[in-house]
Amino acid sequence: MFISFFFACYFMYLSQMINIVLIGSGNVAVQLAGAFSKSKKVAVLQRFSRSNANDGYFDKNIPVIHDLKELKQADIYIIAIADKSISDISKQLKFTQGLVVHTAGSMPLDALLCAANKGVLYPLQTFSKEQPIRFKNIPLALETEKKEDYKLLEALAKTLSAKIYPLDTGQRRKLHIAAVFANNFANHMFKIAKDICDENNFSFDILKPIILETANKMERMSPMEAQTGPARRNETHVIEKHVAELDPDKKEMYTLISRSIIKTYHP
Amino acid sequence: MFISFFFACYFMYLSQMINIVLIGSGNVAVQLAGAFSKSKKVAVLQRFSRSNANDGYFDKNIPVIHDLKELKQADIYIIAIADKSISDISKQLKFTQGLVVHTAGSMPLDALLCAANKGVLYPLQTFSKEQPIRFKNIPLALETEKKEDYKLLEALAKTLSAKIYPLDTGQRRKLHIAAVFANNFANHMFKIAKDICDENNFSFDILKPIILETANKMERMSPMEAQTGPARRNETHVIEKHVAELDPDKKEMYTLISRSIIKTYHP
Repeated sequence: MFISFFFACYFMYLSQMINIVLIGSGNVAVQLAGAFSKSKKVAVLQRFSRSNANDGYFDKNIPVIHDLKELKQADIYIIAIADKSISDISKQLKFTQGLVVHTAGSMPLDALLCAANKGVLYPLQTFSKEQPIRFKNIPLALETEKKEDYKLLEALAKTLSAKIYPLDTGQRRKLHIAAVFANNFANHMFKIAKDICDENNFSFDILKPIILETANKMERMSPMEAQTGPARRNETHVIEKHVAELDPDKKEMYTLISRSIIKTYHP
Repeated sequence: MFISFFFACYFMYLSQMINIVLIGSGNVAVQLAGAFSKSKKVAVLQRFSRSNANDGYFDKNIPVIHDLKELKQADIYIIAIADKSISDISKQLKFTQGLVVHTAGSMPLDALLCAANKGVLYPLQTFSKEQPIRFKNIPLALETEKKEDYKLLEALAKTLSAKIYPLDTGQRRKLHIAAVFANNFANHMFKIAKDICDENNFSFDILKPIILETANKMERMSPMEAQTGPARRNETHVIEKHVAELDPDKKEMYTLISRSIIKTYHP
């Protein structure tokens, strides 16, 4: 009796496992493979790779295939490849069982051209192969074509992170634009600040604490409330003095962003 | 003999103390008073205030004066008041002993019109009265008119922070401009990102981890190395798609900053 109880438990356990197949061998695939390999709720049945690229970064226990015909049946197939190849590769997936998701923030759900149900699992973070990502705090934007698939994708996503956001294709496109401002453009402001430090022979280190505080403040207040500085106070004499000291490129940027801040606070 | 040894030690201790007077009652004065009051190496002899503003935020043990004629002799007089009043108040300081410093990033050393030696102690951080600042990690930019005063000002600064930077008036002016980019303008990028979230009915929370990571990266690499995104990769088709979705103000900003990033990485 004990043995049959044991098997019953074991089969229940197996039935709760989410079986996945990973398609791709880039940064996102490497990071997802690493995270899912550690999960007790997810079994990575296979990974598909066109080449042997990045083989060294993957868990050796995950079987590799190089031919899509060898794909096993799984609950979820995750396509983590370059944006432009998603349609091409998904077109070759002729099976109708299971859920096929891509991981690209800027691609619509219907970039997937597979026969099976479609979805998106978009981790909003910059990835590199070398450094293992701690998914725990990384927001995951989820979308499924069919409502009934959402719970399964959510269950998979929850094994990675507590920060789950249902976002449709349109919202995800906007999120991508918002992230360009919040990440790329903010970083470019840091770049310009560093250039000014370098040109004037003092260390960029002096700015690092205020950069960190600027980001940390977002946990306590909105960016609208957090704003300070000459444009916030509409101090045109300070702005003019600053502009006079900048080269043409920085001048144009300083003027435009200051004008936008002034417009926000002094409409 | 024990008693005379005790007194000798006590007098040595006293002679090592830095005696200061605080002039002003704004945020910076409140924060400096709080930090110096806790220091065993600094004695705050007095503080001067024109009104009773913010009295509740100051340590009750610091004697307040309202007339500059009552000023005691000190090693360092710190003027922490609005930029535009620094010249006016310093003009009224007729004594020639001691060092008079202001705390304004955007004001030159010679905004001080006092008879005594001049200097600047500029804490690079945004201040508010309500929240006690932990000076330990706040960079302090120091300048003295006379070389021989630098050590004293540095000794005082070191009681607050380990991050001390000697910067002359010209460098400090540039630092202020650099900080506008690194703090005010980066924050405005967060503001625009939040607007996009709000307009499309998803939470700005989804962007907070990437904002924090953007700032944290500065500890590991330069902003030049940290850059990612469509402009970094010169993906004009993505940029055009994004621009097409933005209102005129955001469009202009997106275009200009993207152009600047492209110019940086694809000259």
